[in-house]
Amino acid sequence: MEKIDKMWIAPLPTDSAYVKTFRLHYIQNGKEKSWDALKVHDSVSIVIFNTTRQKLVFVKQFRPLVYHSSVTSNGGDVANVDLEKFPIELGVTLEICAGTVDKDKSWREIAREEILEECGYDVPVDQLEEIFSYRCGVGTQGSKQTMYYCEVTDNQKKSPGGGVGDEIIDVVEYSVDEARAMVYQKGNINGPPSFLLGVLWFLMNKRSNK
Amino acid sequence: MEKIDKMWIAPLPTDSAYVKTFRLHYIQNGKEKSWDALKVHDSVSIVIFNTTRQKLVFVKQFRPLVYHSSVTSNGGDVANVDLEKFPIELGVTLEICAGTVDKDKSWREIAREEILEECGYDVPVDQLEEIFSYRCGVGTQGSKQTMYYCEVTDNQKKSPGGGVGDEIIDVVEYSVDEARAMVYQKGNINGPPSFLLGVLWFLMNKRSNK
Repeated sequence: MEKIDKMWIAPLPTDSAYVKTFRLHYIQNGKEKSWDALKVHDSVSIVIFNTTRQKLVFVKQFRPLVYHSSVTSNGGDVANVDLEKFPIELGVTLEICAGTVDKDKSWREIAREEILEECGYDVPVDQLEEIFSYRCGVGTQGSKQTMYYCEVTDNQKKSPGGGVGDEIIDVVEYSVDEARAMVYQKGNINGPPSFLLGVLWFLMNKRSNK
Repeated sequence: MEKIDKMWIAPLPTDSAYVKTFRLHYIQNGKEKSWDALKVHDSVSIVIFNTTRQKLVFVKQFRPLVYHSSVTSNGGDVANVDLEKFPIELGVTLEICAGTVDKDKSWREIAREEILEECGYDVPVDQLEEIFSYRCGVGTQGSKQTMYYCEVTDNQKKSPGGGVGDEIIDVVEYSVDEARAMVYQKGNINGPPSFLLGVLWFLMNKRSNK
């Protein structure tokens, strides 16, 4: 996963299919204001627990923008990067399974498909328990993400997972104790807040008396 | 706070000071890939607990992009919006105190200033307890956010708070029970994942035996 040979920056084309920018103007209490923004798809995320082996199921992947941010915020230049000072692992995140709502299907169905594509478990939609919804990037885009909880078994494992198309995703498993140690350890977690939120929710609601 | 008279969209100027876009190219396992992105400042967030009155201190504000996302993801048009169907409150978020790292100061000092500017409490930096760091917007920007915990007292309240410059921020207080009910209630929380994460962390680590 971590074999990256070269990295360089170019201007964003105006017809980017992924980052659609705009300036939002509004009048608040009689005063004109504006906010620069981009439009991002809503998304789903799923806390997966394998009850056969009592393991939480997460995904690891190289996130080029996390790497870029790590390098540039610490004085580096991605186009001429010192790989000893900024190893590629700085861009490898630990996340819960997730995906964007970019198809004309229900959110639960999209979550079900992400579990199969990324982690290889084929589960019925009614196995998904909705935890909560929140707003991502309130200062840059404001999209909605709904988080689900899903218990799976070894019998439901139908493929290795790993993503579709160009995706390169590693499926990793953590015991409950390993996950607990990770969220109690104060420090740098190379993953999104939804990862920490999902693990804390699981520990509070599914393992609070253990 | 919620008086919004008009809202309209324009293209993003190429010289936007806030949204700086780029296309990141890289070669992973011999295959050229690219990712469209924007550069966003790193940031801090702070879970604030007033020990005098045993209340968690949060902020509410109108987030134009959350409103825009709510409207456009549900078939509405912000430039000609039906305020009965899409009330302005859809854009009012509940958050923990936060701010961007855009000054040449330590992260703790920036967190200290945000607590004073947004919530009105003047605290020494050594009162800030670092909880964890994580990566925001792993698919769009990848910036780092560090979350702190800070206990404050009524004696440290020096101003009403509310933000600086054009900011319009309401300081709101929740009892521990009210906060617990909010995160246990499954449903739509109009706030970022860091809000839920901070409240869950507080309940697990500071109120686990109560």
